[in-house]
Amino acid sequence: MYDEILPNLIKKNETKAVLLIADGIGGTTVNGHTELEAARTPNLDELAKQSSLGLHYPVGYGITPGSGPGHLGLFGYDPIRYQIGRGVLEALGSGMEVVRGDLAVRGNFATIENGKITDRRAGRIPTEKCAELVQKIRENLPDVEGIEFDIKAARDYRFAVVFHDERLKDAVEDADPQQTGLPPRPAAARDEDSELSAKIINVFIEKVTEILKNERPANTCLIRGAANSPDIVLFEKRYGMKPQGIAVYPMYKGLARLVGMETPSGLETLEQEIERLQNSYDDFDFHFFHFKYTDSAGEDGDFDRKVAMIEKFDTAIPDILALKPDVLVITGDHSTPSSLRLHSWHPVPLLINGEFAFSDSAARFTEREAAEKGIIGHIPATAIMMYILANCGRLEKFGA
Amino acid sequence: MYDEILPNLIKKNETKAVLLIADGIGGTTVNGHTELEAARTPNLDELAKQSSLGLHYPVGYGITPGSGPGHLGLFGYDPIRYQIGRGVLEALGSGMEVVRGDLAVRGNFATIENGKITDRRAGRIPTEKCAELVQKIRENLPDVEGIEFDIKAARDYRFAVVFHDERLKDAVEDADPQQTGLPPRPAAARDEDSELSAKIINVFIEKVTEILKNERPANTCLIRGAANSPDIVLFEKRYGMKPQGIAVYPMYKGLARLVGMETPSGLETLEQEIERLQNSYDDFDFHFFHFKYTDSAGEDGDFDRKVAMIEKFDTAIPDILALKPDVLVITGDHSTPSSLRLHSWHPVPLLINGEFAFSDSAARFTEREAAEKGIIGHIPATAIMMYILANCGRLEKFGA
Repeated sequence: MYDEILPNLIKKNETKAVLLIADGIGGTTVNGHTELEAARTPNLDELAKQSSLGLHYPVGYGITPGSGPGHLGLFGYDPIRYQIGRGVLEALGSGMEVVRGDLAVRGNFATIENGKITDRRAGRIPTEKCAELVQKIRENLPDVEGIEFDIKAARDYRFAVVFHDERLKDAVEDADPQQTGLPPRPAAARDEDSELSAKIINVFIEKVTEILKNERPANTCLIRGAANSPDIVLFEKRYGMKPQGIAVYPMYKGLARLVGMETPSGLETLEQEIERLQNSYDDFDFHFFHFKYTDSAGEDGDFDRKVAMIEKFDTAIPDILALKPDVLVITGDHSTPSSLRLHSWHPVPLLINGEFAFSDSAARFTEREAAEKGIIGHIPATAIMMYILANCGRLEKFGA
Repeated sequence: MYDEILPNLIKKNETKAVLLIADGIGGTTVNGHTELEAARTPNLDELAKQSSLGLHYPVGYGITPGSGPGHLGLFGYDPIRYQIGRGVLEALGSGMEVVRGDLAVRGNFATIENGKITDRRAGRIPTEKCAELVQKIRENLPDVEGIEFDIKAARDYRFAVVFHDERLKDAVEDADPQQTGLPPRPAAARDEDSELSAKIINVFIEKVTEILKNERPANTCLIRGAANSPDIVLFEKRYGMKPQGIAVYPMYKGLARLVGMETPSGLETLEQEIERLQNSYDDFDFHFFHFKYTDSAGEDGDFDRKVAMIEKFDTAIPDILALKPDVLVITGDHSTPSSLRLHSWHPVPLLINGEFAFSDSAARFTEREAAEKGIIGHIPATAIMMYILANCGRLEKFGA
């Protein structure tokens, strides 16, 4: 946001901010109440009384965000301008590194017989078999025409590949005939700059098919969703704050790394995430902290479990407040109403706590309180980083 | 705002609008209350009950505006698009005219010895000495290579110069070595169009140094912040309303003149400002009325004095209402919370009164009432002029 003037406004100081994300925390009413309204949240209630509340819309009015755009917006990058391609998301979700200049693609193991694709998913081979085949490829294919790559199994028959070469551009059609009974369709470049990418993908498929020639049913692969890492200014350069991303799931760690955050590995529980925050608090200026299970419960359509996960999230608040961050922001990357069983477009409740944040009359961290009594109003997600910087005293005055 | 369609929408009638600005009036909570909440404001309260309330953000989310951007936004000009350079602000703040085509610069008197700058502020000479040196320059330098200029002393060792020539463009590096012990650094153009400006500035410095050769410690000058007046469509042309700006301080009169408002001189008190409004009410369609002291008290960190200044401001309301303006808008150019002692990013309360303004449930002119009960919601400052025009019946229907 305000990309044109932001670089001239950023200044540094010793403040620290925590951005606490409960994935999919917003909801919509079921019998008159949302999950947040139904939950017992004494810590969030107490904090809400001393904070500014409002609602944010992650991408835009009515737009349901995926996790990628949802988080990019929270990090202050316009998710419509900076789109994260499918290949990059698959790679991040598989726990791979994707950095500027990389080309990431999604792969399907598939079956070819007599020159025709007979199964686009290779009989939906199990994840273990997929991992075995990926290992075989890794051992037999050190590079593609001199270009290094990483490959990693995802779920079932799917895998991801990241090619490391700045010359590889992503305007490439899928190497996928889309239906069975047709011959393989080679990758084709949509522009001149992407011809090398198409060639490398086609050589990769050819080599993989050779390596797997004695396998059944997975004896070839399809490649889709070629995508470069978005060309963004990394978080620390953009904001002057050294950031870390504390998360359990690979997707969120990957999104954090995409903007240049350090991401500790090996965290599996909320307790471990809190412990990490405590132990590394002094080493960073900005802590993005991700809690997943509010979203999972919403996607399962389980109102009561989402309530329980919100109550679990609530228990983390005192330990985080004990660190006395200069600014604490609590929100979600999108809403996931359990009635919908999906991510949704509903605005997400937002709380900003800090010495100079207006203490409004909202007495609970709920959608309704935020809308009725919140001083912040409705803002785009990309405004949140601006408010974090402002409340941290990290923005110069604009103009004299 | 809506620059593309606005010219086709403007129509004229006999309505009159008053834009009443209490500088820095917004605040944030201290022990649960803002200065506006703590103040006794019977007149504002009564008016709020019959008006529309809301909040505006002067430049953008989280951005703290200087007075220049703050006022440009109120006048309906996008403050990010129309940036007012340092030289122009210094000139306006010194009470000088700056019009389209001018090039304004800030000057420092400095000390040069044996070809090196030994003091960038000439021992911080007092304002009186500065004025004396400026007078000497004025007497001895009628023009610079035929280009006319005005020069005026500012505070201490600082002065401002406005060169009047449309050929002078402002892409010029500061003529300032930034540190002592170095030789003077001539102004350098950053593009071809600005080469004449660099030359004129360098000749000006050379002549000044000659004129001051027997002075100590101020025997040369540095020139910084070269800036053209922003290329804007003047207020009356843009809105079809003949405007005046009633203000005590040079900066606000200067900002008003920048957009083409007439600005009476010699006003020193709120009472004199009101008297001027009364006496000239029929001569203009639009009256910008500036009250300074809410901001001054906020910048001094004095909660109680800011409360007192708000109460003083409140006493002006009946006299202004007695003029029966068709539209009265009350707001600030930004917030200045006394807890922060600075301008801030907090949204500013806004009141719109007029025959067709929605009378919402807000019963006081405070940040909280505006957020909780205001019909206007949160809007950018540039929207305020649109609402003034609309409530004045000065905008045609858009489309049939």
